[in-house]
Amino acid sequence: MTTTSPTMPRATAPDPDLGTKVVLTAPLVLQSGETLTGVTVAYQTYGTLNAEKSNVIVACHALTGDQFMCGTHPITAKRGWWDDIVGPGKVIDTNRYFVICANVLGGCMGSTGPKEINPATGRAWGLRFPVITIRDMVAAQAKLLDQLGIGKVLCVVGGSMGAMQALEWAHRYPQRVFAVVPIAGSYRHSAQNIAFHEVGRQAIMADPEWSHGNYLEENRVPKRGLAVARMAAHITYLSETALHRKFGRKLQDRSTLTYGFDADFQVESYLRHQGYTFVDRFDANSYLYITRAMDYFDLASENGGALSNAFKGSPVRFCLISFTSDWLFPTAESRAIVHALNAVAANVSFVEIESDKGHDAFLLDEPDFHQTLRGFIDGCADAQKVQRP
Amino acid sequence: MTTTSPTMPRATAPDPDLGTKVVLTAPLVLQSGETLTGVTVAYQTYGTLNAEKSNVIVACHALTGDQFMCGTHPITAKRGWWDDIVGPGKVIDTNRYFVICANVLGGCMGSTGPKEINPATGRAWGLRFPVITIRDMVAAQAKLLDQLGIGKVLCVVGGSMGAMQALEWAHRYPQRVFAVVPIAGSYRHSAQNIAFHEVGRQAIMADPEWSHGNYLEENRVPKRGLAVARMAAHITYLSETALHRKFGRKLQDRSTLTYGFDADFQVESYLRHQGYTFVDRFDANSYLYITRAMDYFDLASENGGALSNAFKGSPVRFCLISFTSDWLFPTAESRAIVHALNAVAANVSFVEIESDKGHDAFLLDEPDFHQTLRGFIDGCADAQKVQRP
Repeated sequence: MTTTSPTMPRATAPDPDLGTKVVLTAPLVLQSGETLTGVTVAYQTYGTLNAEKSNVIVACHALTGDQFMCGTHPITAKRGWWDDIVGPGKVIDTNRYFVICANVLGGCMGSTGPKEINPATGRAWGLRFPVITIRDMVAAQAKLLDQLGIGKVLCVVGGSMGAMQALEWAHRYPQRVFAVVPIAGSYRHSAQNIAFHEVGRQAIMADPEWSHGNYLEENRVPKRGLAVARMAAHITYLSETALHRKFGRKLQDRSTLTYGFDADFQVESYLRHQGYTFVDRFDANSYLYITRAMDYFDLASENGGALSNAFKGSPVRFCLISFTSDWLFPTAESRAIVHALNAVAANVSFVEIESDKGHDAFLLDEPDFHQTLRGFIDGCADAQKVQRP
Repeated sequence: MTTTSPTMPRATAPDPDLGTKVVLTAPLVLQSGETLTGVTVAYQTYGTLNAEKSNVIVACHALTGDQFMCGTHPITAKRGWWDDIVGPGKVIDTNRYFVICANVLGGCMGSTGPKEINPATGRAWGLRFPVITIRDMVAAQAKLLDQLGIGKVLCVVGGSMGAMQALEWAHRYPQRVFAVVPIAGSYRHSAQNIAFHEVGRQAIMADPEWSHGNYLEENRVPKRGLAVARMAAHITYLSETALHRKFGRKLQDRSTLTYGFDADFQVESYLRHQGYTFVDRFDANSYLYITRAMDYFDLASENGGALSNAFKGSPVRFCLISFTSDWLFPTAESRAIVHALNAVAANVSFVEIESDKGHDAFLLDEPDFHQTLRGFIDGCADAQKVQRP
């Protein structure tokens, strides 16, 4: 592990668009057996690393998230995905904590992924990029911390695919994390979720502009396929109740049905908007790779079929959080993790939050969720004697 | 109403491929205000019309179904969608009942729809076909019965979109139906269901081969878009439990992950198969029109916002059936209909069937469902003194 100044980790010059980047000095041996060298990890930090380096929180983003959790996103000019949660005086108080969020390996916001140039060929990776896994994403994050001179992490927290990464952190690096908070996640992707991902991938690959993954070199963009993939996925992030409350059968800018295929209903207009704004910020091949990584995730099967084997003797504190109306990662998934942790007498808390906002509740203003998250993390910090602000 | 021989209704010559067809003599004034003339209705009958014409059951098919309920389908060579239910000695016993099933208006199995030739232009309708509604579909069926010399129907039965038609029959023709059995349906399409349909339509329209709906004239087929639409929809027809039991995370013809984008998982292979076989039997524009008809269906809003207004003083016997694991048309939808019917003191039975097979349960071997259906229909027939076999 290299050491650096605690308050200003060594990094490459900030990219004016995509923030800070580090090139990993060590090669990354992937789960597939392939090796990536010169991996770039783009990341953002919020707050200040304390002298003891005891106040580090690693936040892991979801499928279409990125390292820009807070403030204004440099590409979309919208608020970061956890701007409600992370910041001075907020749920994860950056007056107390030093929060690191890295764009995942395979992503498209500056970290090495299919959209970047393969140094060996000078061409965009495209489908020549190796298939990566959640384990590989977390390994890249661990190596980033190595280079930033950070040993132990107070807490790894993340929702959805971020929850998978948090579990992987606890599984692979139990001595390196004091606590993890997997939110609205699972220890393995269900058949239904694989099916929804496959629909998205098929939609992308059905777009002739995708061109077998070579669209970047041909100056094409598979916008329509990626938009359809996003629309299908977006429905799964909400709940029927939330859709009903938000849109119901309300018409879009008209008082009667048009008897046509325009977006008569507000929900149609909303979905189209979700689809076609997504393509401006996300890479289609990245979508293929990251959904694949989620599909492959299965902590039970890689531990002899018993999830509890993954956490035998674990010193890590776990806090599982789920939402009642989340049908993509329903409470039963979190509960299965809790049962496995109980079976090996791990230190585990579990809270199911009453919410009708569906899977996306982890991104939204949910006071009970925020209180739970704040309470758990602050409790860990107190236990680790991290100074209060 | 014309009269015909009770046992052999007058019809055009059977189409060797698509069975029997009738050209409606009366024009069809659509809900949109447009008028269709010379509408063809393709239909199949099962069993024998009795002398009193009192044993008629109208079966209404779902979105991707058609008139070939029983036996071997002429296009797919597979069993008809209700071959388990309809036949001699079966749940709907064709030794007792005369069952009529017509391909819906807008369909693609012989009835007038966007794939057929517009007699006014000599060209395929394509997107020049008027947008049709559930009311229009049922009106076409009623006119078919007129021409077949059939006045009153013992029972109208159907699942999913077929349930919408059954409700529409009871609403528009209360003196003409003794009973209706809407299965796994709703009185209006929910925001979530509109959203899923919109994804399917966007997938079709995103396919360049769709060519703004003109693909037939250009000898093209938007196979990829239609396959993606089918894949997304297919997930909604199943339940997470059914998918888990059937596939789980089982691999397809391989023992380890391939770290690629082939169908590693059986569920992926299954979905792709569902998508790409569908395009051989279904027309993409029909898919647009029929999904739109379902989206537009709202018996409450067209009755002053109160569903009960649709059934005030109705003499019709209702039997609502839902399935516990159906998340596309959940039990709450059927229950809302039951409440509305109770509010106007209608004659209504309601059974929620315990099943983990999801929405598709109405097509599958579900003994409790079959017993309920048989009991209700036979009870109606006994009340109407239809002779037992």
